[in-house]
This record gives sequence, structure tokens and C-alpha cells, in this order.
Amino acid sequence: MTDPSATADVTDRPSGAAESVVPQRVREFLDSTETPCLVVDLAVVRRNHGALRSALPDARICYAVKANPAPEVVGALAALGASFDVASPGEIDLCLAQGAGPERISYGNTIKKRRDIAHAYERGVRLFVTDSEPDLVNIAEVAPGAQVFCRILVDNKGSRTPFGRKFGCPPETAVRLLRQARELGLDPYGVSFHIGSQQLDPAAWEHGISAARQVFEGLAGHGIALRMVNLGGGLPGSYTEAAPPLAEYARRIEQSLDRHFGADRPDLLVEPGRQIVADAGVLRSEVVLVTPSAADDRRWVYLDVGRYNGLAETEGEAITYRLRTSRDGDPCGPVVLAGPTCDGDDVIYQRNVYELPLTLRGGDWVDLLSAGAYTASYSSVCFNGIAPLATYCVDGDERA
Amino acid sequence: MTDPSATADVTDRPSGAAESVVPQRVREFLDSTETPCLVVDLAVVRRNHGALRSALPDARICYAVKANPAPEVVGALAALGASFDVASPGEIDLCLAQGAGPERISYGNTIKKRRDIAHAYERGVRLFVTDSEPDLVNIAEVAPGAQVFCRILVDNKGSRTPFGRKFGCPPETAVRLLRQARELGLDPYGVSFHIGSQQLDPAAWEHGISAARQVFEGLAGHGIALRMVNLGGGLPGSYTEAAPPLAEYARRIEQSLDRHFGADRPDLLVEPGRQIVADAGVLRSEVVLVTPSAADDRRWVYLDVGRYNGLAETEGEAITYRLRTSRDGDPCGPVVLAGPTCDGDDVIYQRNVYELPLTLRGGDWVDLLSAGAYTASYSSVCFNGIAPLATYCVDGDERA
Repeated sequence: MTDPSATADVTDRPSGAAESVVPQRVREFLDSTETPCLVVDLAVVRRNHGALRSALPDARICYAVKANPAPEVVGALAALGASFDVASPGEIDLCLAQGAGPERISYGNTIKKRRDIAHAYERGVRLFVTDSEPDLVNIAEVAPGAQVFCRILVDNKGSRTPFGRKFGCPPETAVRLLRQARELGLDPYGVSFHIGSQQLDPAAWEHGISAARQVFEGLAGHGIALRMVNLGGGLPGSYTEAAPPLAEYARRIEQSLDRHFGADRPDLLVEPGRQIVADAGVLRSEVVLVTPSAADDRRWVYLDVGRYNGLAETEGEAITYRLRTSRDGDPCGPVVLAGPTCDGDDVIYQRNVYELPLTLRGGDWVDLLSAGAYTASYSSVCFNGIAPLATYCVDGDERA
Repeated sequence: MTDPSATADVTDRPSGAAESVVPQRVREFLDSTETPCLVVDLAVVRRNHGALRSALPDARICYAVKANPAPEVVGALAALGASFDVASPGEIDLCLAQGAGPERISYGNTIKKRRDIAHAYERGVRLFVTDSEPDLVNIAEVAPGAQVFCRILVDNKGSRTPFGRKFGCPPETAVRLLRQARELGLDPYGVSFHIGSQQLDPAAWEHGISAARQVFEGLAGHGIALRMVNLGGGLPGSYTEAAPPLAEYARRIEQSLDRHFGADRPDLLVEPGRQIVADAGVLRSEVVLVTPSAADDRRWVYLDVGRYNGLAETEGEAITYRLRTSRDGDPCGPVVLAGPTCDGDDVIYQRNVYELPLTLRGGDWVDLLSAGAYTASYSSVCFNGIAPLATYCVDGDERA
């Protein structure tokens, strides 16, 4: 979570710039659809995938399906030859149904039931993460001979949504587990780490790559040659806080790989979610009500989307979306943004002060930009009787 | 949210007491069903409704549908003659479909679109909350002549899940709005307040009742006689932290009503959600994995339920469920409890130290008791490819 004491002024209304931000095909769709809804532009998904392939040409791209499991998104990436980082049997079945062969699936959740591993293995999946002995033993028993990589715990500093200590083990434990993997008949393939989602520091991978090298050396001492480093996710989407360009991330990652692996370069995996799909999505909401505040001059703007039907990542105001409204260009004033439920926690931005048009009223629309990742799939099934956020995918020529 | 600096020891395993806690008809169902799932005992729903009717015989009970919108729960309460507090058109339609007439529906969300009000009015709903002029004007225009009550902002101290400043207006604003309501042709009926969910202080209603009296007097000065006080929700479920008995809440509420209204007793509404349905539900989860901690002696116990598929109220560890496991009776040690997704925030209890059997392992079950409220309807549609929490209702003779 972000520091709750900080107050940021995140006025971000590119007046008159709506046309350059949102392609016409998306705008047309938004204007014709019930709110709230998420519209994903598949052309942008493909462009972002291509940009990452250019930036990190040696890395195998495993799309983190959890970021947006819309079948059209998975299908578009499968058609480009992408691989997939999956969290559950449900995500495996989705990828297979969308044309990705099992050899392109990496089971990237350290928390899996024995029968989930069996489900994956029966469908041909042969690549699994692990970070604990009980999980490793399960893999050995129900996915004999599979490739495994071990997730190590690294510093999440610089991430807007860090992971805490839930995942990953210390490098010395990874050495022990990957030795045990070989004893259990598995193929100890490599090491993964995750420097935290929406990572704004392009140098953040250095520590993980250094720790990965340590595990490689530890195993070399036992006659085991690891062959893979999984760089995890963390590449950013475009929110109010500017992130460095993708090329800068790639440059710093390449530097760290050179420093720690030199000519002995391992296979690389990368697990982008947000980088692929965040900027491809626009979330259209309707203003339900604008009311004066009892306490100060900040109006309360209530939208028909909130914490429980799409904006889960505004918990702690971790992710600050850029906004555009149907009244852009009119004079602005500060607001508190809140969602539509009878839940006191369903407030979107209160610490971060957004400025929105003074003319804004019920029935107007507010678009949340770069909302393609970690939104629709988080929606509650029906909290407060409100339907989950609908996703629509549009497609078109990138130059349109 | 609770104070994040506090650390509570919430060891709560009534060894051998499983039979007394969970009726046999529920246990049989749990043992035959895929996890995770919520089983709601309708006999307990009816018993809790009856207990509240006995404790506050003068109050009209409006079940807060948001707490658990399972059609069977709504139907069971409708059959008992209950009224309903609804948050959206979806909840209105649900109540009507379950046999509650529109005269038994209170539209209790201050945040509603103009067309949502129209939806309600067209179906016969005539009772609406408000706390702002734009909403009031919408009600007057599309629900002409309706009864309105005004929500005032009160102190939430003592609540495990307070509301902040999202809802309610100061008493002086309520006076202004209810005067305006009459000018707009509406029927200014009364005042509501909410002292925060899972309220552990039975005296907490005093402040709201006192403020309501103030609004009554303010309007009397303008020749308007209000007739209703809506006591809101806040009555507790049974979690690790003991709550006073229901009778104590009723006694303190009656005292406050006597103090402020005397013989001039208004109509009373009460909006229980948790009090009706929390203790009626048992959530059965499966242990996915138990792993050692790298940092200390607390094992990590990963369940197949977490923040995103049912345990939303463990955000900030606000609600601490009582647990029972398939290994109860064995020696225990401290654990961190976490959910199944690849999300670092999907940790259930870390600050609160639970003790669970040292023998616990993958495939065992853990039941979360009193989990009938604010669980299933919060579930995400498919985050990490995981299905929403299923709800099953069982029924039977209370003495069985």
C-alpha cells in the first residue's frame, strides 16, 4: 500500500485531448453501452505485446492471465504465439480453449491443491513454480518429471502494490528445494522472483537477478545447472504517476543480466499482465450523484463503479487512474470520488485529491483510463445487488 | 478498520464442541460438498429474526438484503412478514420475486440514479432514504408523494467496520432537507442513522437517537411532525471478540428512546443484516498447503478461500471468524492464514495470531463459523480463475 499520510494532487485532465487518448472505435462503443463497462481494445493488447517482444527479444512472454482473463484477450495473445502464466485450473482451461498448447502454459501459483497439479499435468502442462517442500512433493507425485522453478523472496520497494511475505523463499531454501526436486525426479529448471506490481523503479530487477545468480551458483556446487530466470511481472500501466518508458526497464534488466550472468545467459521468462492490458482498457462509469460535503469544499462525486464492481485496486488508493469526463474543459474543483454501494469502504479517492468539472452532475460520464488490468475479474458477483463489471472487446486497425 | 497496531490472541477452538456449534444437518451437508462453500441454516435465520422481534417488539424489522441476498434467505424472512432494506433495483426485484410486497421495501441507499428511483416507484416502493438535495429532487420528480427519511451522520466509535463520512448529513441539514421534502410534495417521515456494522457497544445508539430527536424538534418548529426513527444496523454476529447479548442492546436502545422521546414514541425501523444471517452460516474451506515460515515459527496455512472469494471482511482483519478444523483436539501452534490467489493482499490473518493444530495439512478442512453475512455476495466473479463462493441453504426443525 501507499503511504496513507501522503497527499498527492493528481489533477489530470488533458482538456480536449480525449480524441488522442481514446481511439474512435472505443469511443463509439462506450457511447452506445450501459454503464459501468470496460472496453478493451485488442489492437492495443497486440501493440503492447509487440513492444515488449522488441524491448526484451530474448524473453519468453508469459501473459499473466489474472490481469484480464477475457477470452478475447487470451485468444489474441495466443494467436501471436504468447505463453501464459496461470494461477489455477480455471485459467489453464481458458488458455487451452483459446488455442494455447499446454507447452505454452506456466503454472505460476505457489499455492495449489494436489488435484490442481494433477489437473494441469493431465492436460499436458509441464512447467510449475514452487516455493515450499509440501508443494514440491505434490508436484513430484502427480506431475512426475515436470520442470520446476523456485520462487525466491525479494524486496518489493518501489512497487505500488507490493506482495509482503506471502510468496517466495530465501535463496538458500531455493537451493535446497531444487536439489530435492532432482532427487524427486523433477527437472530443476530455474528461479523466479517478483519485484511487485506497478513497479516504478526500472532498476528494481537488479536485486532479484543477483539473488537468482546466487541460487544458480549454489546449485552448480551440487552439479545442477539451472537454465532459466523468470523475471516475473511489475512492468507498469499508465496511471496518474508517470512511469519510465519500457525501453528503460529493458536496459536496466539487460545490464543486471550482463552483470550477473555475462555470456552465460539463461533462458528468460517474463510475466507481464498490467503492461499488456492496462492501457488497452477504458472503464466507462456514470455519475450517480454529486453532493456538497458537510466538512469542506470538496464535493462528493458518486460513480456507478467502485471498490466492489471493478475498482478493487483503489483499495488504499494504490492505483490512481487517469480520468476524463463528459464535462472536460469546464472549470474544476476538488472532489472525493466514491462508489455506489452502501459500504463505507467503497470510497475510491479521498486522500488523493482529484479535480473534476464544477458542472459535473448525475447522468454525466466519467471514464477511467488504462483500466484494462485487475478490474473486471475482481468484481463481486452481486454485492448490494449490483451486477459485475461487463467487459467488451473491440478490435481494429491500429492506425484507425 | 481496527487499530493496525493492536495484536490480539484469538485462539478459539472449542475442542470437541463442534457438535454443539454446528447442527448435524449442516455438518452432513458440509461433508458432502465441494469447497469452498457457504452453508446457511434457514432455521437459524428464522430464530434470529424471532429473537430480534422479541427484543424490540415495537420495531419494524427491515432485513439488510446486502448481508446475504440468497433467495432462500430472503424468502424465509418474507414468509415471516419481515420488511427489507434494499440498496439497488437488483435487490428490489429479488425481494418482490421472493414474495415481499413493495410496501415492505425500504430503499435504503442514499446513492441512487434517477432511473433507479423510477424503477422502485414503478414497482410500488414508496419509502426512500436521502441525505442530499440532488437525490431529494430526483425522488420528488420520479417518486411523487413518497415517504422520505433523512440519514444523519453519527459517531461510529465501537464499530469493527465504521462508515467514515460517506453517508449521512448533519442534523441541521436534515431539517433543511425534510422541510424541502414537504415543499416538493413528499412526505417527510423520519430520520435514520447507522452507528457502524458489528457494533460492540450497546450504548452506541444513544447519540443517534439524541440527534434524531434534535431533527424532530427542528422540524416541529416548522410545523412538520416526523413520525419515524430508523435505528439502522450494527447488531453483531458471533466472532472471536465476544459481543454483549441482544437483550442488552435492546435495553440500552429502549432507555435512549425513553430519554429522548418519552411517551411520544415514534415508529421504529431497524435494519439488521449480520444479526440475522451471520450466525446462520458456516463456510467450509479446504487447506491447500501448510508451509514453514522463513521468518519465524508461524506456519503459513493457505486455504482455498480468501479475500477475493468470500472473506472480503477480513480486509484490515476487521472481522475475525471463529474456526474449527478436522484436526481439532491435536496440539496447536501459531499460524498465518492466507487465501489461494497470487495476490499479496490475499492474506486473511497475520496481525491476529490464530493457533491451529500442528497436524494440519493439505486436504484437511477448516470451517469459518458465523460466516453467513457479507461473504458470498462479495466474491469476485473469477479472480485468478477461481469460481465465486457457492451458497447452499439447508432447513430443518430447530430442535433437530
